[in-house]
Amino acid sequence: MSVALVGAGPGDPELITVRGLAHVRAADVLVYDRLVAPELVDEAPRDAVRIARDDLSQAEVNRALIDHGRRSFVVRLKGGDPFVFGRGGEEALALADAGVPFELVPGVSSIAAVPESALIPVTHRGVSQVVTAFAANDVEQIDVAVLARVPGTLVAFMGGARAERLAQRLIEHGKPASTPTAVISRGTTDDEEVVVAPLGALRAADVTPALVVIGEVVALRAALGALRRSAA
Amino acid sequence: MSVALVGAGPGDPELITVRGLAHVRAADVLVYDRLVAPELVDEAPRDAVRIARDDLSQAEVNRALIDHGRRSFVVRLKGGDPFVFGRGGEEALALADAGVPFELVPGVSSIAAVPESALIPVTHRGVSQVVTAFAANDVEQIDVAVLARVPGTLVAFMGGARAERLAQRLIEHGKPASTPTAVISRGTTDDEEVVVAPLGALRAADVTPALVVIGEVVALRAALGALRRSAA
Repeated sequence: MSVALVGAGPGDPELITVRGLAHVRAADVLVYDRLVAPELVDEAPRDAVRIARDDLSQAEVNRALIDHGRRSFVVRLKGGDPFVFGRGGEEALALADAGVPFELVPGVSSIAAVPESALIPVTHRGVSQVVTAFAANDVEQIDVAVLARVPGTLVAFMGGARAERLAQRLIEHGKPASTPTAVISRGTTDDEEVVVAPLGALRAADVTPALVVIGEVVALRAALGALRRSAA
Repeated sequence: MSVALVGAGPGDPELITVRGLAHVRAADVLVYDRLVAPELVDEAPRDAVRIARDDLSQAEVNRALIDHGRRSFVVRLKGGDPFVFGRGGEEALALADAGVPFELVPGVSSIAAVPESALIPVTHRGVSQVVTAFAANDVEQIDVAVLARVPGTLVAFMGGARAERLAQRLIEHGKPASTPTAVISRGTTDDEEVVVAPLGALRAADVTPALVVIGEVVALRAALGALRRSAA
């Protein structure tokens, strides 16, 4: 049989793709991340084997995918997109090495969808035509000297508690302290929280996971916010 | 009534989101881009008004959304994600200014999904933890001096014919000519084409639209390619 690496999207369960949901509904085995919406886990067949990734090491996850994938249709459901800060590449390589057929089903990444849910367009004509996304779990290891100088929008995937330190380092390397910044937690879900402040005034928000969006596009939120989510 | 700005995804019609498809199926009016899969346009109700964006100016599109949005449920179906190089922000601002309620439904952006379809993970632990996407329609206007120095993966949205010139400019500013590069056209569709070469050996591919991926992650494609799309 085979393994499908499926992106579950940014949080809201209706933001999974049509193909992704079809695969979940056909799964013999579902291996899912903690951050995946429970509504999607419930979409798997009643008798499907469900494996929470929670306490497994990456090597154990790879092993489970290979073992089950040899004889069953396995869906590996990952938050966001499998290939964006998701270790999907490592799982795909392990499957390729083991000779287990696999398919990739992209998901809606948080890169643009979470800012979008907070009414922030990561690109906007005349404001930003560049967006740089980076993993920022280890704030001290990031090449802030270059990132502070990239034009356009910065999107950091990180725990919110480190956002203040990231801001501090970027400002030290020349990013204006006045740059509009948003910290978004649980984006696209009913529990979404958004904090907006100039980069220099950002205070630690103890939320995980969080997306930190830095750039002039954040200022567009006010104009768009007048009619926030007021559609049918 | 209201307007839903919906991302159609990168090309493959099954990569629209569940919510996006539900909205298309409920539309009174569908305004769609040329690049949107015809299968998705066909999903609108038989009696829905269909407006191809083709020959309309952006001002005319905004006008149509506002006029129809006052009395009908309008779905504005855009390639990829509405807020990623898609002018969705401009349409949302026009709606906000006019007092027409709107909703945003993110789509799968080409940023990660098109490289993924070509078996290239834009981030991969130990190889790249940064991905920078930029619009490159006007190659001469791009800030290549900074982009050549950003660590990680570069993703350029552009016509393929200008890829060679982009490569030349990046190399002039210090990007190694040996950097693995892929030009992907019609990504995620049955007509997908992928050309891989070192940055310095890239030749113009006259394809529009194309995505150009530059970085060491492109080299992972060979290892993953052994079992390309061989799943059920």
